[in-house]
Amino acid sequence: MLIKIINPNTSRPMTEAIERSARAVASMDVVAVTTSMGPASIESHYDEALAVPGVLAEMANADGYVIACFGDPGLDAAREAIAAPVLGIAEAAFHAASFLATRFSVVTTLTRTCVIAERLVRRYGFEAQCGGVHGTDIPVLDLEHGGEPLLRKIEAAAASALSQDRSAAIVLGCAGMAPLCAQLGARLGVPVVDGVAAAVKFAEALASLGLGTSRRGDYATPPAKPYAGFASHLGW
Amino acid sequence: MLIKIINPNTSRPMTEAIERSARAVASMDVVAVTTSMGPASIESHYDEALAVPGVLAEMANADGYVIACFGDPGLDAAREAIAAPVLGIAEAAFHAASFLATRFSVVTTLTRTCVIAERLVRRYGFEAQCGGVHGTDIPVLDLEHGGEPLLRKIEAAAASALSQDRSAAIVLGCAGMAPLCAQLGARLGVPVVDGVAAAVKFAEALASLGLGTSRRGDYATPPAKPYAGFASHLGW
Amino acid sequence: MLIKIINPNTSRPMTEAIERSARAVASMDVVAVTTSMGPASIESHYDEALAVPGVLAEMANADGYVIACFGDPGLDAAREAIAAPVLGIAEAAFHAASFLATRFSVVTTLTRTCVIAERLVRRYGFEAQCGGVHGTDIPVLDLEHGGEPLLRKIEAAAASALSQDRSAAIVLGCAGMAPLCAQLGARLGVPVVDGVAAAVKFAEALASLGLGTSRRGDYATPPAKPYAGFASHLGW
Amino acid sequence: MLIKIINPNTSRPMTEAIERSARAVASMDVVAVTTSMGPASIESHYDEALAVPGVLAEMANADGYVIACFGDPGLDAAREAIAAPVLGIAEAAFHAASFLATRFSVVTTLTRTCVIAERLVRRYGFEAQCGGVHGTDIPVLDLEHGGEPLLRKIEAAAASALSQDRSAAIVLGCAGMAPLCAQLGARLGVPVVDGVAAAVKFAEALASLGLGTSRRGDYATPPAKPYAGFASHLGW
Amino acid sequence: MLIKIINPNTSRPMTEAIERSARAVASMDVVAVTTSMGPASIESHYDEALAVPGVLAEMANADGYVIACFGDPGLDAAREAIAAPVLGIAEAAFHAASFLATRFSVVTTLTRTCVIAERLVRRYGFEAQCGGVHGTDIPVLDLEHGGEPLLRKIEAAAASALSQDRSAAIVLGCAGMAPLCAQLGARLGVPVVDGVAAAVKFAEALASLGLGTSRRGDYATPPAKPYAGFASHLGW
Amino acid sequence: MLIKIINPNTSRPMTEAIERSARAVASMDVVAVTTSMGPASIESHYDEALAVPGVLAEMANADGYVIACFGDPGLDAAREAIAAPVLGIAEAAFHAASFLATRFSVVTTLTRTCVIAERLVRRYGFEAQCGGVHGTDIPVLDLEHGGEPLLRKIEAAAASALSQDRSAAIVLGCAGMAPLCAQLGARLGVPVVDGVAAAVKFAEALASLGLGTSRRGDYATPPAKPYAGFASHLGW
Repeated sequence: MLIKIINPNTSRPMTEAIERSARAVASMDVVAVTTSMGPASIESHYDEALAVPGVLAEMANADGYVIACFGDPGLDAAREAIAAPVLGIAEAAFHAASFLATRFSVVTTLTRTCVIAERLVRRYGFEAQCGGVHGTDIPVLDLEHGGEPLLRKIEAAAASALSQDRSAAIVLGCAGMAPLCAQLGARLGVPVVDGVAAAVKFAEALASLGLGTSRRGDYATPPAKPYAGFASHLGW
Repeated sequence: MLIKIINPNTSRPMTEAIERSARAVASMDVVAVTTSMGPASIESHYDEALAVPGVLAEMANADGYVIACFGDPGLDAAREAIAAPVLGIAEAAFHAASFLATRFSVVTTLTRTCVIAERLVRRYGFEAQCGGVHGTDIPVLDLEHGGEPLLRKIEAAAASALSQDRSAAIVLGCAGMAPLCAQLGARLGVPVVDGVAAAVKFAEALASLGLGTSRRGDYATPPAKPYAGFASHLGW
Repeated sequence: MLIKIINPNTSRPMTEAIERSARAVASMDVVAVTTSMGPASIESHYDEALAVPGVLAEMANADGYVIACFGDPGLDAAREAIAAPVLGIAEAAFHAASFLATRFSVVTTLTRTCVIAERLVRRYGFEAQCGGVHGTDIPVLDLEHGGEPLLRKIEAAAASALSQDRSAAIVLGCAGMAPLCAQLGARLGVPVVDGVAAAVKFAEALASLGLGTSRRGDYATPPAKPYAGFASHLGW
Repeated sequence: MLIKIINPNTSRPMTEAIERSARAVASMDVVAVTTSMGPASIESHYDEALAVPGVLAEMANADGYVIACFGDPGLDAAREAIAAPVLGIAEAAFHAASFLATRFSVVTTLTRTCVIAERLVRRYGFEAQCGGVHGTDIPVLDLEHGGEPLLRKIEAAAASALSQDRSAAIVLGCAGMAPLCAQLGARLGVPVVDGVAAAVKFAEALASLGLGTSRRGDYATPPAKPYAGFASHLGW
Repeated sequence: MLIKIINPNTSRPMTEAIERSARAVASMDVVAVTTSMGPASIESHYDEALAVPGVLAEMANADGYVIACFGDPGLDAAREAIAAPVLGIAEAAFHAASFLATRFSVVTTLTRTCVIAERLVRRYGFEAQCGGVHGTDIPVLDLEHGGEPLLRKIEAAAASALSQDRSAAIVLGCAGMAPLCAQLGARLGVPVVDGVAAAVKFAEALASLGLGTSRRGDYATPPAKPYAGFASHLGW
Repeated sequence: MLIKIINPNTSRPMTEAIERSARAVASMDVVAVTTSMGPASIESHYDEALAVPGVLAEMANADGYVIACFGDPGLDAAREAIAAPVLGIAEAAFHAASFLATRFSVVTTLTRTCVIAERLVRRYGFEAQCGGVHGTDIPVLDLEHGGEPLLRKIEAAAASALSQDRSAAIVLGCAGMAPLCAQLGARLGVPVVDGVAAAVKFAEALASLGLGTSRRGDYATPPAKPYAGFASHLGW
């Protein structure tokens, strides 16, 4: 069985880093793909909206899907597209963290995107478990370069969040932070959850149980109709 | 001052009907535009996701904007794009109805889209005021033809909702229902809110007060970056 | 069409200031009236309770009503009294601010009244959008005198609220702050919402759409009955 | 120590019935008073608003107070007026019922007043415990006459509520139902809570513990100021 | 009538202190018992879980019961066991405090147990009224020794909580703090609620009204069945 | 790595059925154990409370744990006991179902236990996703015998729940229903989630990621202390 990870931005180095992280933990086959249209990185509602068509274009030929951007862009639409399970990495990370601590904190990139994560927290029902979402104002693509100063900045934000939120686990709020997960866990001494890894394992879990998106109700295959312009090849 | 109404689907007859309804109530100039890309009608999460780029492409040259689809597709992204006020019609209708009754009910098209409205109710904070969202399973484009049987079907759903939800006002859950608003109000004997009209008047209200989307925080102009594919001309 | 603004306290200078602010933005005719009974200013639950009969006594002879005190005193009762639309200024300001930013902060007068605004936030459903209610401990009637030190005190409280709440718009928590709105907006660089102006425009919007309080359910005309004492002339 | 029960309507027979019910369960001295101003019965937001000044005029000369109308009119203002504990009967009944069952139902008079109780449920925090508020459309003053048909009507509404809400206790939603409490309890076989009795016992409990309304924060004595008209003698 | 107070830990000095506090305020007969099995003090979820069987073993021979540990361990199970009313001290304290102030703060022992109180706040519906739960990191059994330094530590935490939470009453978050209640109230100048006293008075109130746990629904007597091991004598 | 499944009741046949179901889906080694103390089945708050010590006594010698009763008895205490991940089956099933549908329904055994599941729904944050909890009044131990009539009864309850709740997935509300999962899924045509299978896969996922319960905060190892009676050997 194959798990396909879709990087909703167009940065290939990020896709490669995500794929490496995923392969290190996966039991099934894993492939990571880069979208062919949309923003170079996702740092606004606007970027997120423009990333979605590229995500939907990749919804084929796998037994489980992971949308590897912390805003879970296009998750509902992707679930309508296909019966195989689809996981967002924010969703997966929140769920995983809620198994490990009664309160967790999120450390993310630009402060302006905190509201995106906060709304997902509310929508998925983790308001009582999420102590706070904390921006570091590290641009998403700077994560590719890694390095000790970057690590220290995230570590400091995480340590401060644990104390301020009286929380006991950290969720990394960007797919680009996946390669830093192990080091941060070792330094902080609490569980640090990378959504990519969590989503891959949960997608494997569902796929192996034969569970996929319900074909009844709002996730049923959408009514067929004409799509114009860029979307003309995205129907069925 | 000009209010631009964006019909997020590609149906010109619907745009024309929306424009007529809006002009009948507007104090400012009004123009309604049809998106050039995306779905012919919006009846799923998938349709909604593919409609958003077309909405964003229209965000220019007006003093206020209305997104005329009941799922408010692209609302956050549109707000980032420009400082003029942007209203969604679901949002505007919920707000208007909450001024008129302590509980209102929504009557919409396909039952499968009820969850979209229910999530907006929750996200905007109207859980205590919205008694229920009720599908009629009328396809969106069938609304264009109007006629007595259609009107009766919606009237029956609204009457049943008022009783079942113990509510006292009706929100029409589709831009395509705008032309039916006056007749339904007369028949039902309670306020019936058409989101297009409400959004136009609220957009006028904000524009005349000199109020627009905050340029601070998450609605500030997004960081500039390359967009690939269809999105390549949507940056700044 | 006429919009009547009811100042629920007995301060005529405040009524005059409110009327000036309202006329500056109104499209319809506007009149502001001072209640003939009740407290000189509203700075407690007690003041608010005693202000309500005076508000209700003014519910006649207009096409739309605004209750110009930030606790929205008597709003439900006023809606029962008459079919024309009635808006509270807290309500209108919250709704307006929610169109402009994903999070707003309220700056008000006495800290002891913050709880009144906080409960309205909760009751109207703006808990996720309102970042906080902040007292300045400026007595309500001191606002009449205006002046730079007062303006600076409110500006400082607003700036601190924007930062502390990570919010992007300010709601002015007292009708007496209406004359300061434009200056504060210019200084703070974010949308500053005066509830009086917002309520006038929303009342105009509803009135022009032919929408008023539902005559069904709990807002229907109350059952006729004898009222004793001061209330003896307030029945129908 | 003396517990004063304030009947917020002007019906003396109801006051007498309330006093009898209260005396049957009280350990302390009890007196029930009828307001001298306001509505003959409380069956709307409007009635409730006009009842409040009469309640506040009675806030003196006791060691604990009960506001004996199910909308808890004037509760916050009354608490500001004096340091002795003040209980509303809706509040007391909800609290008592929550000690006896994981879910309770409310049976009240006019359906149009259900929303008043529903909002108190929400404001006091009993949303998870209250299964529903059910109107019987019995006018408040009809309760004075009692009798088997009336009892049967309430019993039937309660039995239906228990089943429909899957609840296990009944709250009587009107002070006028106090005399029926014992009979209803015997017939229904579940705890039936009369708010008057519950409020008297809780007021006694607090008074005997030396606990009263906090004099800090929003319940501190309000700032002194002139009150005009009927309210002129209600200051301090 | 007899109120039985169950100390869920095995510390007899704490039981004696609780009994003294309770007798000082009770109108009915009071007896306090120490469980014969379980932890010496309750400072974790684990301790709490192991304390419950000992609580249940004491559910007999009284007209009202109080579970005197701030986590309300075993409350639901105890209510199933018997028809007499059962109160937890956290529950009783929250309810009492909500009658005295619009916002209260909790001051408790170990910070690690704050989450237990926070969950009770949420479960009982006091989220809007509870401003915060504050740990002092005083071990439970240290409370037995009392003394000025201990009192000052709690006083300081309470004063800080009142200010930080903008609250107006204090709830003592441990049965072991009961003897300190009067002194803390005098020093802080706000109502200080001891859950033991509150629970005793509320249990008396319910018992005197003839109200007890509903025998319908989930609190009905559990289905009889074999219990193995330590639990073998706890069936019926 | 070894996943240990703890059956909190003393029924060996149920343990064996659980183990078979788990082995059919597990990638790691699995062992299921029966508690040596407590109730024969769990059908009340009382049963649940008495089952917890037996669960805690089994917390050793594995790399991941599953508590196989739908009330998740002892979950918090179990997490304190050990660093390996611990999953409850209600928790795991809710999480899994939320990945597959926007709304799911729970079908369980005795109606009296619905409130236990409803509280878990609320506590874990699935209120917006769980459409309802439905009792079948099948005693837990009757599930051991299986058979067509039993299957039909559950199928009918599930079909009715899907329609009534407008939901699109089913959660089986008892570990004893695990063997029926595949058949129910085939008959109902929607995803049917068995919590045992879901919890095993999620425990494997966490264990393979090196994630376990945080040792910081409220889940840190509890303070050592004496435990009396049956609990005397349960300390560390």
